[in-house]
Amino acid sequence: MSGSADHTIRREHHHFGWDHSIPPVATVAPGSSLFFECLDSSAGQLTPDSTVEDVAKLDFDRINPVTGPVYIDGAEPGDAIKVTIDRFEPSGFGWTGNIPGFGLLADQFEDPALQIWSYDPVALTPAAYGPGGRVPLKPFAGTMGVAPAEPGLHSVVPPRRIGGNMDIRDLAAGSELYLPVEVAGGLFSLGDTHAAQGDGEVCGTAIESPVNVAVTVDLVKGANLRMPRFTTPGPVTRHLDAKGYEVTTGIGEDLYQGARDALSQMVDLIAGRYNMAPVDAYMLCSVCGDLRINEIVDIPNWIVSFYFPRVVLE
Amino acid sequence: MSGSADHTIRREHHHFGWDHSIPPVATVAPGSSLFFECLDSSAGQLTPDSTVEDVAKLDFDRINPVTGPVYIDGAEPGDAIKVTIDRFEPSGFGWTGNIPGFGLLADQFEDPALQIWSYDPVALTPAAYGPGGRVPLKPFAGTMGVAPAEPGLHSVVPPRRIGGNMDIRDLAAGSELYLPVEVAGGLFSLGDTHAAQGDGEVCGTAIESPVNVAVTVDLVKGANLRMPRFTTPGPVTRHLDAKGYEVTTGIGEDLYQGARDALSQMVDLIAGRYNMAPVDAYMLCSVCGDLRINEIVDIPNWIVSFYFPRVVLE
Repeated sequence: MSGSADHTIRREHHHFGWDHSIPPVATVAPGSSLFFECLDSSAGQLTPDSTVEDVAKLDFDRINPVTGPVYIDGAEPGDAIKVTIDRFEPSGFGWTGNIPGFGLLADQFEDPALQIWSYDPVALTPAAYGPGGRVPLKPFAGTMGVAPAEPGLHSVVPPRRIGGNMDIRDLAAGSELYLPVEVAGGLFSLGDTHAAQGDGEVCGTAIESPVNVAVTVDLVKGANLRMPRFTTPGPVTRHLDAKGYEVTTGIGEDLYQGARDALSQMVDLIAGRYNMAPVDAYMLCSVCGDLRINEIVDIPNWIVSFYFPRVVLE
Repeated sequence: MSGSADHTIRREHHHFGWDHSIPPVATVAPGSSLFFECLDSSAGQLTPDSTVEDVAKLDFDRINPVTGPVYIDGAEPGDAIKVTIDRFEPSGFGWTGNIPGFGLLADQFEDPALQIWSYDPVALTPAAYGPGGRVPLKPFAGTMGVAPAEPGLHSVVPPRRIGGNMDIRDLAAGSELYLPVEVAGGLFSLGDTHAAQGDGEVCGTAIESPVNVAVTVDLVKGANLRMPRFTTPGPVTRHLDAKGYEVTTGIGEDLYQGARDALSQMVDLIAGRYNMAPVDAYMLCSVCGDLRINEIVDIPNWIVSFYFPRVVLE
């Protein structure tokens, strides 16, 4: 329900990519509460009835719609938009896919794959994963951003200084996000909602899910942020950590390769121990497991580890 | 007290670097409990009376001693040594230093710095930091490893396939570590004990502290591990997370630069908000803040964030 919001931004008002010439769909005062209706990241191309064939047919020109943009009165370059994330209204439907060419182990998992999720949108009890396990849910919006100063259309895929497709799991209810403004009004949009994701989003998708989102937008004059920052009101992994973690390590001179090594060993461990297809273990890792940098100073070898929450499968 | 252990390995029996020709100081059966007495990572060069001048004079040939090695009966290449981390006996003294040339922001912090810690070794209440704040403690051994197959002396600084100076904060009490064996008997050693550290150990040092460590060693035949892995018995950040986090982001194509960007923005935030010298904020980040990879799939920009636990300063 959007009844309590100052403004509701309808799902029809979405755009693909960032472009400061896209006209705002609403102009709001700082302090306004906004309710964003959101499509999933496939813009409805995938549904509860979809099969793996539909993943292969995805139209990438219609990937990752964001609802907006919203013009915040008084926002100017050098200011920050403060976004307080108030509340989520999840849909109960989700999907996780392996999209060829996309993902940390794209070279090892070349074929499309799809898992459909059905979860309780109110109780948000851990969601059953078809191949095995139950995944604790923590909804968030993968994409929140403002328009870049540079003219033209910019792909929504990479996150940027202005935020965008950050896919930060901890931008959940109660968090406060600060985004650097580059154009008048900021031009804030939001989308790519997820029911759950691990740090890294390693297979390239989360539990992609249509979720409506209530936020409050404020203005911080002259914040002069280099990049986005945020504050969380409390713990960020309590939904996952009760039984601890299985952890695999990637040790070497390159953090990216370290992440790949840690993840591929975890896929092997989960697939072997639970008799799961490797691609299903890979997608499960993406929705619940975390990449952490344990050390980045013991020259020349750094350690990236993959943390799989034991509560999901034990 | 080491009364309950099958074997006590005295602090006098330490070595600098890995070399499988170093004779074992004990030969033990799988299932044995071992009690390691440990020097701090300066091998006693820094004491409660040390000043910053002593950091500049550190003898690097005597850095990071490890106590051991211990020969585990029956261990052969291809097996794994399972190390169950049973218990810590901290000393109450610690130090954190900025050592020129060492650390994630070594180019920004070129001068030596030193903070001395005094903490309650039994209650392990959060330790007061001179420039401000209280840091929750969670002791662990930064270095646990076995001898490499390759002959000769190998620096202790970089972690390797055989473990070593991994500096993994979550190898705390109750964790089970699996190390790949490369030579007969494994030749296990342990040292570099810390009273607390954040993921990343970003300034290059933790709360470096002499701590004695009780472990149990077991043998897993034919484990054929590529790299070390471990299991934690429960949550890993409960000591830090009650009040949530301040988080800065590093967005770009290179994970290492992303980590540097996130950290330098956090140093600025902490130093500015709490009127702390930047180098003191940097060292505080090292002992309590965490580097996380939020996403590694949104081509071509990844996000590394620095999570500072608010409980330390609020």
